[in-house]
Amino acid sequence: MGLDLDFMFHPRSIAVVGASQDATKRGYGYVDALLHHGYKGPIYVINPRGQDVLGLKGYRSLLEVPGPVDYVISSIPATVVLQLVDESAKKGVKVIHFFTARFSETGHAEGIQLERDLLRKAKGANIRVLGPNCMGIYYPAGGLSFMRFSKEKGGVGILSQSGGNVSEIVFLANLRGVHFSKAVSFGNAFDINESDLVEYFTEDPETEVIAAYVEGVRDGPRFIRAIRAATERKPVIVLKGGNTEAGTRAVASHTASLAGSRRIWEAAASQTNAVLVDSLEELVDMLVAFRFGKPVYGTRVGVIGGGGGRSVEAADTCERAGLKVQPVPPSVREEFKKRSPNFWDWISNPVDGSILRGSGLDERAILQLLAASPEYDFFITNVREMWTADSPEDIQNIRSSLDGYLDVSKNIGKTLFLVENDMVTNFSWQNEAMAANRRKSIQEGVATFPSIHRAARALSRLSTYYRNRKAR
Amino acid sequence: MGLDLDFMFHPRSIAVVGASQDATKRGYGYVDALLHHGYKGPIYVINPRGQDVLGLKGYRSLLEVPGPVDYVISSIPATVVLQLVDESAKKGVKVIHFFTARFSETGHAEGIQLERDLLRKAKGANIRVLGPNCMGIYYPAGGLSFMRFSKEKGGVGILSQSGGNVSEIVFLANLRGVHFSKAVSFGNAFDINESDLVEYFTEDPETEVIAAYVEGVRDGPRFIRAIRAATERKPVIVLKGGNTEAGTRAVASHTASLAGSRRIWEAAASQTNAVLVDSLEELVDMLVAFRFGKPVYGTRVGVIGGGGGRSVEAADTCERAGLKVQPVPPSVREEFKKRSPNFWDWISNPVDGSILRGSGLDERAILQLLAASPEYDFFITNVREMWTADSPEDIQNIRSSLDGYLDVSKNIGKTLFLVENDMVTNFSWQNEAMAANRRKSIQEGVATFPSIHRAARALSRLSTYYRNRKAR
Repeated sequence: MGLDLDFMFHPRSIAVVGASQDATKRGYGYVDALLHHGYKGPIYVINPRGQDVLGLKGYRSLLEVPGPVDYVISSIPATVVLQLVDESAKKGVKVIHFFTARFSETGHAEGIQLERDLLRKAKGANIRVLGPNCMGIYYPAGGLSFMRFSKEKGGVGILSQSGGNVSEIVFLANLRGVHFSKAVSFGNAFDINESDLVEYFTEDPETEVIAAYVEGVRDGPRFIRAIRAATERKPVIVLKGGNTEAGTRAVASHTASLAGSRRIWEAAASQTNAVLVDSLEELVDMLVAFRFGKPVYGTRVGVIGGGGGRSVEAADTCERAGLKVQPVPPSVREEFKKRSPNFWDWISNPVDGSILRGSGLDERAILQLLAASPEYDFFITNVREMWTADSPEDIQNIRSSLDGYLDVSKNIGKTLFLVENDMVTNFSWQNEAMAANRRKSIQEGVATFPSIHRAARALSRLSTYYRNRKAR
Repeated sequence: MGLDLDFMFHPRSIAVVGASQDATKRGYGYVDALLHHGYKGPIYVINPRGQDVLGLKGYRSLLEVPGPVDYVISSIPATVVLQLVDESAKKGVKVIHFFTARFSETGHAEGIQLERDLLRKAKGANIRVLGPNCMGIYYPAGGLSFMRFSKEKGGVGILSQSGGNVSEIVFLANLRGVHFSKAVSFGNAFDINESDLVEYFTEDPETEVIAAYVEGVRDGPRFIRAIRAATERKPVIVLKGGNTEAGTRAVASHTASLAGSRRIWEAAASQTNAVLVDSLEELVDMLVAFRFGKPVYGTRVGVIGGGGGRSVEAADTCERAGLKVQPVPPSVREEFKKRSPNFWDWISNPVDGSILRGSGLDERAILQLLAASPEYDFFITNVREMWTADSPEDIQNIRSSLDGYLDVSKNIGKTLFLVENDMVTNFSWQNEAMAANRRKSIQEGVATFPSIHRAARALSRLSTYYRNRKAR
């Protein structure tokens, strides 16, 4: 397939069928999202009474539209979709995206039959089908979107059987400085499926990292081939939904997928270098890790900041995640001794930030010294938790500590993941400072994680990915 | 031991030795915390020049203090502590809390010797020692504290070898509606140790739930006996620091504890009904679970709200955590059918909140119907994530959904854990609404968790605890 699907991201015009003046309906949301994202071609809004929507002229039917229509968004009930396919065929439409649901996922014979009829008709007319039961395409560079997302474009291409999940992933990743080349919610995957999209993103020059949320696979061997080919070119992160009995039931009711092909996933994991994750949060963490992390092949971590108890937990956490908490090497200990004759031998890895006052060494200086040693592959640094700030003025102390890390990060040539617990507190000045610090870190090119557990796991997977890639 | 330590929480007077006018020093922080918390007895501030601190009259030495002194807080260097013990003996002091550090945890022979001398002197004078190298006591009912914590008292008694950890636990638990009877940071545990404190909290009528952060144990068999006796009376949650090689090294440098007694912990887990957790966050989650959860013996969960993809992940997550995602029983399906002839058979557990619009059923009604069935033990409910709110007005929709759950929770007689992702966003109106919703849930007696992963794991452990307790 390769770039065969590229046409889908560059329609000359779009028709929203089922466009609505009711802002709570998707038939409004689609029009609003295209306008918000500045889609350049004509947008035709179509509904039974030919009502205008958001200032765009309304039509009663696709056949009334004056110009050509490449791309149709269907937001009409399942009962009338066959007529829409007929009209699209007459109009020379290239692709129909069905937000419309209630097909095979209902488990009803009529729904399954309708889906079959729809596909047969579409195939006969050479129309590709996205969905049904999906949110569609977000392509910031082309002004395509199904919600008001960020207009900033980035390097992540994502395919997802769930529109809700892809929306969450985009929102959460954006907050942490990761942006998208293209996102495709593909629902029941009746025509365009997971393998088509993985092959597309593999070839797509705008996509540097591929992420996938998949509930079921139509063709196991082809999917593994696609993932294998993709992982030879770019990192691929896969979240598989439906790994348990209850998960499998939920998948059937959600996208009518057969999730029970556990073997396909085990094969995908062992035969390829895909990064398999267990939750949406972990998927976002890996996007952050690939966006900000440098290629790395070792697992030796230095952990800096945090109090004594947290340092103990950090050590346990990192080792459980498969990292090696590397003791401070003699050469660095000598440096510590020079600068801090009284405290030097109390400093170990993890570095307890609470004992440094008056020692002649601070977290910034220690990071600089450890980073210069070839015995460390990467670092996790902690800033004091925002909820411990006892006044707006105290925020400045946390900011200074953050700035120290960010400053040093520029010249060490090693990956630094910053832990900033971002729990919402009851004080808006704390929350605003937290958000500002996160934005500052992103701007300076440093990844932030909400807990050391998540940072350590992401570092471990990052290192495994690059190590496997080198070994192949 | 039992309540032998009770005197420590009810001193007639307190002397802060090393009291300081410098607000960045602990010798200031201790005085400030006692004043802030309204400690009723006299507070004597002592420093070499007899300077007043925060309006309290200063003395040059303990011996200058006019009245009796029950409790001494030592915030002076290790080099002068032996003299302090001598003066305390003359003064009839009952307990000295040593914030002072740099004893055996340095690994230096002098530090180890100093600690021994200190203990010998204190024992000779019948003075109990808390620490050294610890933050001390927080007892809101008695106005004792080492930081400006909440003045609200609650039912959790906590002992911790790390002052930083206990501070974090108090802050995080407070934010989620859990308050404390007493918290004791006990550092190197040279005299008063983990077993003494577990025994104390077991007898303490103000303590309903015991939590412990322990790095090392002085007397393994006694500790197991203490935990076993405690778990027969109240829930005990234990976080053990130093379970890996690096963690063990960190423990030695932090509190000079011998962490390598992995067998003690395995015995403690198998011979008692203590709830062992792996992180500070999990410890706080269990405090929340015991505070808001009802006794429960089954594992059958109903999950409501969240979109289709999230519902799949919820099912996988719950089953991995050891819960059973119970299918909707026929009797409830009949009820669904009556109220929603077109959608009823599309509703399964987890309940996909995104398909309900126009169905005649909402999340609140579904919770009510499921909760009435004896086939469910408890529920996890999701409200839409705050970052999806596209305007301050949209917040109201999330609030309505929350209010629906809270309203139903009052009459179902089953535990409901609410998932509210509390990630800080770039919009203060979202963060403020998030904090307000959390406060509302707490006020209505419903526990909140930041992710379904954490909610599911806490429910699973809660159920295991009560099941084990019943079986004994």
